[in-house]
Amino acid sequence: MPVLAAPDGDSAAIARIIDEGMNRSEAMTTASALMDRIGPRLTNSENHRKAESWAMDLFRQRGLANVHVEPFDFGVGWNLDSYSVAMVTPRALPLTAIPVAWSPPTAGTVQAPVVIAPMSREEHFAEWKGKLAGKIVLVSLPGQTSESKGPVFQRYTDSDIAALDTYTKPDFDPDAPAIQVRNRRFQGKLAAFLKAEGAVAMVKISYRDGKLVHGEGYDFQPGQTLALPAIELAQEDYRKLVRLAKTGAAPEVAINVAARYDESNLKAENVVAEIPGSDPKAGYVMAGAHFDSWIAGDGANDNGAGSITVLEAARLIAKLGVKPKRTIRFVLWSGEEQGLLGSRAYIDQHYASRPVDPSLKGIDSYIAWRNAFPITPKPEYSQLKAYFNMDNGSGRFRGIYSEGNLGAEKLLKEWLSPFDMLGADKLVVSKTGGTDHVFLQAIGLPGYQFIQDPLDYESRVHHSNLDTVDHMRADDMRQASVIMAGMLWQAANSDKELPRAVLPTQPAPTDPFKVRDPSQ
Amino acid sequence: MPVLAAPDGDSAAIARIIDEGMNRSEAMTTASALMDRIGPRLTNSENHRKAESWAMDLFRQRGLANVHVEPFDFGVGWNLDSYSVAMVTPRALPLTAIPVAWSPPTAGTVQAPVVIAPMSREEHFAEWKGKLAGKIVLVSLPGQTSESKGPVFQRYTDSDIAALDTYTKPDFDPDAPAIQVRNRRFQGKLAAFLKAEGAVAMVKISYRDGKLVHGEGYDFQPGQTLALPAIELAQEDYRKLVRLAKTGAAPEVAINVAARYDESNLKAENVVAEIPGSDPKAGYVMAGAHFDSWIAGDGANDNGAGSITVLEAARLIAKLGVKPKRTIRFVLWSGEEQGLLGSRAYIDQHYASRPVDPSLKGIDSYIAWRNAFPITPKPEYSQLKAYFNMDNGSGRFRGIYSEGNLGAEKLLKEWLSPFDMLGADKLVVSKTGGTDHVFLQAIGLPGYQFIQDPLDYESRVHHSNLDTVDHMRADDMRQASVIMAGMLWQAANSDKELPRAVLPTQPAPTDPFKVRDPSQ
Repeated sequence: MPVLAAPDGDSAAIARIIDEGMNRSEAMTTASALMDRIGPRLTNSENHRKAESWAMDLFRQRGLANVHVEPFDFGVGWNLDSYSVAMVTPRALPLTAIPVAWSPPTAGTVQAPVVIAPMSREEHFAEWKGKLAGKIVLVSLPGQTSESKGPVFQRYTDSDIAALDTYTKPDFDPDAPAIQVRNRRFQGKLAAFLKAEGAVAMVKISYRDGKLVHGEGYDFQPGQTLALPAIELAQEDYRKLVRLAKTGAAPEVAINVAARYDESNLKAENVVAEIPGSDPKAGYVMAGAHFDSWIAGDGANDNGAGSITVLEAARLIAKLGVKPKRTIRFVLWSGEEQGLLGSRAYIDQHYASRPVDPSLKGIDSYIAWRNAFPITPKPEYSQLKAYFNMDNGSGRFRGIYSEGNLGAEKLLKEWLSPFDMLGADKLVVSKTGGTDHVFLQAIGLPGYQFIQDPLDYESRVHHSNLDTVDHMRADDMRQASVIMAGMLWQAANSDKELPRAVLPTQPAPTDPFKVRDPSQ
Repeated sequence: MPVLAAPDGDSAAIARIIDEGMNRSEAMTTASALMDRIGPRLTNSENHRKAESWAMDLFRQRGLANVHVEPFDFGVGWNLDSYSVAMVTPRALPLTAIPVAWSPPTAGTVQAPVVIAPMSREEHFAEWKGKLAGKIVLVSLPGQTSESKGPVFQRYTDSDIAALDTYTKPDFDPDAPAIQVRNRRFQGKLAAFLKAEGAVAMVKISYRDGKLVHGEGYDFQPGQTLALPAIELAQEDYRKLVRLAKTGAAPEVAINVAARYDESNLKAENVVAEIPGSDPKAGYVMAGAHFDSWIAGDGANDNGAGSITVLEAARLIAKLGVKPKRTIRFVLWSGEEQGLLGSRAYIDQHYASRPVDPSLKGIDSYIAWRNAFPITPKPEYSQLKAYFNMDNGSGRFRGIYSEGNLGAEKLLKEWLSPFDMLGADKLVVSKTGGTDHVFLQAIGLPGYQFIQDPLDYESRVHHSNLDTVDHMRADDMRQASVIMAGMLWQAANSDKELPRAVLPTQPAPTDPFKVRDPSQ
């Protein structure tokens, strides 16, 4: 392995990181230990806490310091022990399903006829009043099987990546928050309506075909969980029930959800560990990935891949046995799937405050936070010199997004240059969304993500029962871990600092000509 | 709907077939009745017989005559009542699996540690002797998750179809039969070895990823069924067990297969029905599709689609209320999945004899039959004027294969011409294989199949747990049914007859320079 030229940091260190990470990677054995043995990690579940202990042990074994958890307000814990969903009439047939997370348990196995009653607005309730008692209610429109001609599995071509290099003007839709709240609240209202009508359970359709199920669910404040058991059913099975019901076969379904609420601890926890730096005045750099997952698979690509990469990057740097100038901090976030809650809490505790009513919870708090001004930085705000996040599956790194911060491109490109030969040579200006660097960026902090090959993440793996170690790619994980470690090492030792974006003082501008579609 | 010009037959009748079949199709409601209500139809199972009764009732309701079954020698019946496969250690996790058809049942739920012991040749047994007692044996190599970049769902472009238009010279590999027999026999020998070693069950890996399972299996002569319970496991779950076993987690699995053998009736049955013709001397035309299926899905695209198309074509023609010149016969074959057994038996009984040792069964009989000469035609041989088969999913007809019979192309094209506007205007010379027209063609009879859009048949549906009505296409089924009926109607009334291929007198020629790979 030739010693590569690293413009910043120690080029011999980069070569050692590459050698260790490519030749003696522990990424996939660690991935198996987390995903195969422990399994999915719903925020504030017993399994998540088990995984936290496992990660803290691993950080300590790998020689990291200051290993600890940082709790934050979350909500009710929920543990899924077992479940089954089967058609009983007109013939016995196991169905592919998953309980909606935070669904109430059933009282043992409940069996009932189904009724097809699609409802997506409160004004639809009237039609079904008095007709749902004793029924399992199919609340979604059935739709049709996909004729998608796209590939299941994808690696980016250079022109795919070039198409990502687009500057998007910030835009704020003032109606969006209210619509989000309304849609989010509707599930709870629907469940309450069904419960009041004496229904047995509610069933929604999966949003992907091919017998994929997901089980995302959101009502997790005490007293706000769904009023009756809720199941997500595979499209094929949902439409089978619809066809049978529509042709007089009177299907009956049996559902068993053995789940336990836990209100004894309403806090979830981020896991934090550090490699201390030699210069306490130089600030610190950080890498992170969310550790929590949904429940249908093992949370392997979302986001075991990012978590394992953070753990492996920590190992690779610790193994150098050389103190970086700046401290390198590693964080495994929780509550990401419910609204970036762990990283948002971390911002509140470490970086800046925004004037949000503390009585707001969940989606209301999320929306209020995003639009609350002014942002008041705390002392630690200036200490975070770079943050690298990973949450787009296990696909290899192809480069980095500058998140609209044109001023940061030069230095990011410089740090990336040792990894050209590993195929990670692209820099694009566009923003990425939906994960834990977003709120850091929102307050002007330097949070970045890498361009990753898509693999089959969006087509079938993300949040689904296919999100297992099998759909991670060992070669890609090795490469990502090496680059994550190398970027951190250079950022920790560089004489330069990433230029920051401007601290926002008000929401992004609004389109003055926008006319809202009243049917939305 | 304009009256179309039909070069043969009655153009008003074609217009009425199109009107009825496109505007008042019963294809999908019939499909739901068969697949959703009755479900999969393994040859000689109780469910297959239930479906036979259903089909005979439907033929009778649709006004067909001479509705009956024709039994043929098959083997043991097998009925799967329920099954479950779950990982128990290191954590509780339901696994996606299916029993191999004709697997022995388990004695209730059996739980045991797994051992990874890939064996594909008898010489591999020695390595595992004495090591398998009390174990659930994973007998396949684990392989890796697919990175296939092909589309899940496909409709043919004109150039895709042009590529099918290739004449392939007949070729006979004299080594192939022995290799087929050896590979086929190996599963039985492996099961017997495992049983003798005291193993609990054998587990093989699915041949597709994405949690698809299939459950094909073949040993069905009395006394020849597998010696111990056999399970096919989803790739994702199989490799999870491998990773856990390889990293010391000592996985244990619980298997329950509630299945019943039935040796009381070793015959399976083809279903036959007719629309009688006005001229008994004019011979008859025929359409067919295999009615049997595998067990993981509902046998919707393989081959409910063909069966439903045959039933709908019968309805469309019967509804004309006009007697065709020639009788039109409809056959729903059984035993296709085990080696075209129903259509082969039909040939023996109706069309021709070949000198095969009657003591040979299953694969041995299949291979011997294909290579037995001379072929001695029976009187009915000359009466079959055309046969149209359907067994390539529910994709719309795009044209027809002339199966290497260049002399038949002109008339096939003429009969197809009324359906140009429905997109079925292509004629290609290549042969199709693997279904019930093949043995008719093999003895020189005019058996044809239509070019069909592939949809997601090969990519994920064929034989898998996704083979449900959901993956059929209603528009395509309407179109196929109309064309099937129209082709039959024209063939039944035409003054012309399809030119026959030459009656074979010996196997296809062999490549004189072929050198066999000894590792195969």
